[in-house]
Amino acid sequence: MSDISTSSSTPVQYTLIITGEEILSGKRIDRHIPFLNKTLYDLGLECLGCRVIGDSDSTLSELVKDALIKSDVVIVTGGLGPTLDDITREALSDATGIGMEENPQALKELQERFASMGRPMTDNNKRQALVPVQGRFFSNPNGTAPGLVFDLGNKLAVALPGPPRELEPMVLDAMAPFLMERFHLKKVFRSATLRFCCLGESNIDAVVREKLDAVPDLRVSSLSHLGTVELTLSLPDHGLEAEEALHRCVEVLRAEIGDYLYAEGQYTLEEIVGSLLKKKKETLAVAESCTGGLLGAAITSIPGSSDYFNGGVIAYTNTIKTECLDVDPDVITTHGAVSEECAAQMAAGACKSLNSDWGVAVTGIAGPGGGTGAKPVGTVCIAVASRKGAVEAKTWRFFGAREAIRRRSVVSALDQLRRILLNLPSINP
Amino acid sequence: MSDISTSSSTPVQYTLIITGEEILSGKRIDRHIPFLNKTLYDLGLECLGCRVIGDSDSTLSELVKDALIKSDVVIVTGGLGPTLDDITREALSDATGIGMEENPQALKELQERFASMGRPMTDNNKRQALVPVQGRFFSNPNGTAPGLVFDLGNKLAVALPGPPRELEPMVLDAMAPFLMERFHLKKVFRSATLRFCCLGESNIDAVVREKLDAVPDLRVSSLSHLGTVELTLSLPDHGLEAEEALHRCVEVLRAEIGDYLYAEGQYTLEEIVGSLLKKKKETLAVAESCTGGLLGAAITSIPGSSDYFNGGVIAYTNTIKTECLDVDPDVITTHGAVSEECAAQMAAGACKSLNSDWGVAVTGIAGPGGGTGAKPVGTVCIAVASRKGAVEAKTWRFFGAREAIRRRSVVSALDQLRRILLNLPSINP
Repeated sequence: MSDISTSSSTPVQYTLIITGEEILSGKRIDRHIPFLNKTLYDLGLECLGCRVIGDSDSTLSELVKDALIKSDVVIVTGGLGPTLDDITREALSDATGIGMEENPQALKELQERFASMGRPMTDNNKRQALVPVQGRFFSNPNGTAPGLVFDLGNKLAVALPGPPRELEPMVLDAMAPFLMERFHLKKVFRSATLRFCCLGESNIDAVVREKLDAVPDLRVSSLSHLGTVELTLSLPDHGLEAEEALHRCVEVLRAEIGDYLYAEGQYTLEEIVGSLLKKKKETLAVAESCTGGLLGAAITSIPGSSDYFNGGVIAYTNTIKTECLDVDPDVITTHGAVSEECAAQMAAGACKSLNSDWGVAVTGIAGPGGGTGAKPVGTVCIAVASRKGAVEAKTWRFFGAREAIRRRSVVSALDQLRRILLNLPSINP
Repeated sequence: MSDISTSSSTPVQYTLIITGEEILSGKRIDRHIPFLNKTLYDLGLECLGCRVIGDSDSTLSELVKDALIKSDVVIVTGGLGPTLDDITREALSDATGIGMEENPQALKELQERFASMGRPMTDNNKRQALVPVQGRFFSNPNGTAPGLVFDLGNKLAVALPGPPRELEPMVLDAMAPFLMERFHLKKVFRSATLRFCCLGESNIDAVVREKLDAVPDLRVSSLSHLGTVELTLSLPDHGLEAEEALHRCVEVLRAEIGDYLYAEGQYTLEEIVGSLLKKKKETLAVAESCTGGLLGAAITSIPGSSDYFNGGVIAYTNTIKTECLDVDPDVITTHGAVSEECAAQMAAGACKSLNSDWGVAVTGIAGPGGGTGAKPVGTVCIAVASRKGAVEAKTWRFFGAREAIRRRSVVSALDQLRRILLNLPSINP
């Protein structure tokens, strides 16, 4: 167990215990786990695990004791109300062996709060003025229950009020600053976020294992979402040294799979494509069949997209393909509406009829119906046409349900344009 | 420990273990705990607790063993991928002492899946065809990893795939029916789900409090999402009696706010509008400015939407509004592109140029830029035009960020058409 009263190179580790009957019965959605984990991760703390238990789970004291063995900090939310079935206060006192006493300041704040609410204060309520004899409390400007810190010297047990509107400001205004001072924290990790598209998480994982396995202390996490993968590399912060080591890792991946890397940092693919068009002062139009507007919706989700996006045609019927996008009816008869030939003419048509530098077209079978042996559900043709007349069409085979296929189509369409704008080799699916 | 192989009056108790590094680091918000708890609660199961742990937490096997002492069922999500750090399979095998073997059917489904993806299957992937020698597996139509049931006779350990789009259908289609049969469960609650749009959650809540407060044992939960509210009313199942009591509650709300009630059950607004058009054998076209395709994307998210949806024009520029939708340039000069006049002409233009029975148009200021004193960010004009020439245009003032404003616009546009198709009075925002 690291003595955390002095700064240590290993991250401060914590466990979360959320009390909430309504979460266990699916009536309420927990907000504390994402909020606390995000807030504490950014301070450099590491979460060992989270638990959700019932409101007056008699084992709470045991759970806290157990969690204190491995964790530097144990945080319990909820159960700080005035009634007897609010057991968190007593459970933490029991688990830490630290008693409680009525605190004059806490009592004063409690009385003022009731006064401001114009409500009489019962003796029950007075229990909310009990604070650890060894530790401190956080004032609660948004409720009656203060936050409690039971301080064991090398470990802490913290109790926070259950309502998010009370807990969240208390965490940001009181607990976070307290923990930073208590543990001499400065952001203890440097991290780089890389965003890939059109490359499977397992392929990326394989490259990371092969090329970065030897990097000491490297923390890698990846998050995959329908055609895109966000990869985060983190290293303990030794200043410039860590900075350079991270940079080297990024360069290694860039050398291996750089073409699939569409952004460093928190940018989306539609932002990247947008900024490329903006730089070139070029405009874009879309022609959508199976995506039905999803591509345009993605592009226009970016503020200021009107600088480079003109608009598009949602050509769900063949008539609209031929009438609004000048697709040759023979092409549809010969090759079908889901064909590279049709996609190419749709892209060129969007370019021309919407007077844009670039036209991107998507036509495919999103399912669940409409698949054939030759063109099963998931077959999607994507084409990019330029005002100068060049057209590139590709056929993809996506898997998953209708929405997954549509979203993957949008990612691949944006990436196909991105690669052309950057003169990168195109993918042959 | 209740022997759950025979039906028991005490509820079947379960523990959830969620694996997910990104949840501990606050990068991703867990969806499994609310989804699984709500689903299983409605089956009459009782959750003893939930845990969130890291992806390859070596203690998983111990945690499962420990949870199996108190729980009839232990459910673990995630960690079923093909790579070696996907440890859930082995951890459950170890915790239950039940071995695994390659299952021909599972292997066949896996091979078919890879074939459909047009991707080669590595030996790694073959691990995903391993199933418990004592138990069963759930097929995964949306991914490669099947669900696994390790069956101890009086207890179960279940492994489910991590991605929600794989887990959720598997739970509803396979796990829930399996558990109901296995434990001789009948739904212990009857519930009715009502879906409202364009009416605030607090307004609905107020009506519920005023009108349904006296109904004994009534459980009400509501879930609000950008312009729509899903309200669930539940009563303990006393057969027909509960059925009738629920029906009366629904009728009370229908009488009060029935116009805002677009569906009973799990239907979406786009499904409802689609089925109305289908019944009338009428067709729809859209003209989108600030939503940029989001309305078309919503409509085409429904399988079979090609039966009634022709397509649309994404008119992000004024030129496209005038050239592709016959909007009078003077209208834009006089009233602006964000005006009921412009919206009306866009809707009529979509109707005419895409030869449809109905045209729906959206033009507005989604922000963050572009707002003025007279037309602040969130000002959105929505119009519905019919082939016969009638047009109805409304101006809304939405709050929130760009995406929220765009999504609320889509909901209001669909609802405006819904009310016209049903001859309901239109909303005056």
